[in-house]
Amino acid sequence: MGEAAAIAMDLQALREPIVQAPLAGGPSTAELAAAVSDAGGLGFLAAGYKRAAAVRDDLAALRSLTDAPFGLNIFAPPGTPPDAAAVARYAETLRPEAERYGVAVGEPRHDDDDYGAKLELVRAERVPVVSFTFGCPAGEVVARLKAAGCDVWVTVTNPEEAAEAESAGADALVVQGFEAGGHRGYFRDEVLADDLGLLAAVRLVARRVRTPLIAAGGIADGASVAAALSAGAAAAQVGSAFMLSPEAGTSAPHRDALARDGSTRLTRAFSGRRARGIVNRFMVEHDAEAPIAYPDVHHVTTPIRAAARKSGDPDGINLWAGQAHALAVAEPAGEIVRRLGREAREAAAELARRLG
Amino acid sequence: MGEAAAIAMDLQALREPIVQAPLAGGPSTAELAAAVSDAGGLGFLAAGYKRAAAVRDDLAALRSLTDAPFGLNIFAPPGTPPDAAAVARYAETLRPEAERYGVAVGEPRHDDDDYGAKLELVRAERVPVVSFTFGCPAGEVVARLKAAGCDVWVTVTNPEEAAEAESAGADALVVQGFEAGGHRGYFRDEVLADDLGLLAAVRLVARRVRTPLIAAGGIADGASVAAALSAGAAAAQVGSAFMLSPEAGTSAPHRDALARDGSTRLTRAFSGRRARGIVNRFMVEHDAEAPIAYPDVHHVTTPIRAAARKSGDPDGINLWAGQAHALAVAEPAGEIVRRLGREAREAAAELARRLG
Repeated sequence: MGEAAAIAMDLQALREPIVQAPLAGGPSTAELAAAVSDAGGLGFLAAGYKRAAAVRDDLAALRSLTDAPFGLNIFAPPGTPPDAAAVARYAETLRPEAERYGVAVGEPRHDDDDYGAKLELVRAERVPVVSFTFGCPAGEVVARLKAAGCDVWVTVTNPEEAAEAESAGADALVVQGFEAGGHRGYFRDEVLADDLGLLAAVRLVARRVRTPLIAAGGIADGASVAAALSAGAAAAQVGSAFMLSPEAGTSAPHRDALARDGSTRLTRAFSGRRARGIVNRFMVEHDAEAPIAYPDVHHVTTPIRAAARKSGDPDGINLWAGQAHALAVAEPAGEIVRRLGREAREAAAELARRLG
Repeated sequence: MGEAAAIAMDLQALREPIVQAPLAGGPSTAELAAAVSDAGGLGFLAAGYKRAAAVRDDLAALRSLTDAPFGLNIFAPPGTPPDAAAVARYAETLRPEAERYGVAVGEPRHDDDDYGAKLELVRAERVPVVSFTFGCPAGEVVARLKAAGCDVWVTVTNPEEAAEAESAGADALVVQGFEAGGHRGYFRDEVLADDLGLLAAVRLVARRVRTPLIAAGGIADGASVAAALSAGAAAAQVGSAFMLSPEAGTSAPHRDALARDGSTRLTRAFSGRRARGIVNRFMVEHDAEAPIAYPDVHHVTTPIRAAARKSGDPDGINLWAGQAHALAVAEPAGEIVRRLGREAREAAAELARRLG
């Protein structure tokens, strides 16, 4: 134990240069990750919002479905607790929402999402790729994971975060552009950030570090995959494009919204941290009041979101989606991987003709 | 007259798939446009903020330097005048700024930037490519220009604007991503817009229209040019990357700021319309108060910006820059075109190897 050589996931060796975004909060399933990995991409499990024991079950389910490599995403722990009074004031403004859906407002909680237990789990289970979002684990944590045979990836949004993650020993960096659906991966959410678009982010990060990059954000078809690789990424991470697949756990109202042309925005209304979702009533009515308070606000809105989801009302749900969500196609996840790969090769051939 | 066949600028035939951004407000010069066109790209003149007579002089200067095709950018006229009281209030808050630089606050003016005279000029001069920003000219205007032998391009930021421009008869669309420096090209500035990143914008627009696309925003090296072409654009428009060239009219303090790693943001503080520039004191202090009032606010801040520029103080200037401005290199414009072309071909070859 601890002596295993690092697996050193070779991104260049992936049959299709496509990494499935973890998709915490519902869409993530073992079936989705298995289908993506079996088709030659790299499937991911999302540990976020689950106890370590539930994640262990997901790992067992995935390993019963495939022998292919896969990844698992963990949320780095949040910073110092927010102003409790601000959270309480926001919870108070949400009381009519809770009444509308027949539930109580949730209790705020500044928890670490079972971080320590998840770190132990992925070491014990020798998960091939462990990625982090919302921050960079300390160098010793990275070293221990690598010694156990895990590759460590860190989600970054700008060159400074990339340099920090490289110093900590990350094997690869997921460069998240402003276009991405779901939460922004900023290490420090309270600082006004740069919001780099994907192409600019990849080029600026590539100038700063030598670690392999995975491009994430607004990539939902093969031409975009080819573009990400042209920009120097070793692979493209794709989220929204998988959310209509039958293997995904995406809720019915969320599927309906994704398939339409709806605009997306960043908001703290649902979780206290900026995240991109399709514009709906809850976002419009509460965005301006939401404090910087993750995951405290997430827990406050949980009962409301759950009830809205259950009743099929898209206006009370966090409809996470990337800017290109309207390009998603409802087909099996393996088909999506193969189609994106085919489209990317067509785009590469066309590019070679043009620049020949 | 009026019977000339349209030149139908063939973007595929450009030796280098690189279009110079117009760069109104200082950096645009005939020398820059000539150098870009001579190197096999497509140089552009900026008609913005100039009287038609001055633009005629620029055209004469450019044609004395090169026989190669080129483009000229015109600002579409603004919409209805803004609330004059809001503009007056903002002007009042800028009084200390004006005093700091020893000038008076400018007079607000809701002018159309000599639109009609410029349309006449480009028809009479048979400018090869006439591009529009801030809106789409009416179908009859487009038809008259095309009849005179001009190709008509329209800057768009989303699929709806793209469809409108295609209906009006545009020959090509400049798809502007959120990353771009300078003003956002929204047709209707007062509507809360989607702020699509470049890759997502190009893919969503490509799904909606059949008109050739030029990708603009955050493209400052050849790998990004290859990425834009992979995404389906016929060419890439490049702005910040040319602003350090000796041919550009970029001011000294602006050059210094571009070469550093400074963050950029969108702001209305300088002109009353959202535009991306490097964060400086003026932006931070006035962003929140600036009304939606273009070009009225532009005229209000003109004396302040001119005085700050003259005194070499970057903190009073609109330091327009795209998100990737730190990639700009101070070399001759023709060298930049050739280097970006070379880097793009290298990226295409690497992509072909990866996806082979």
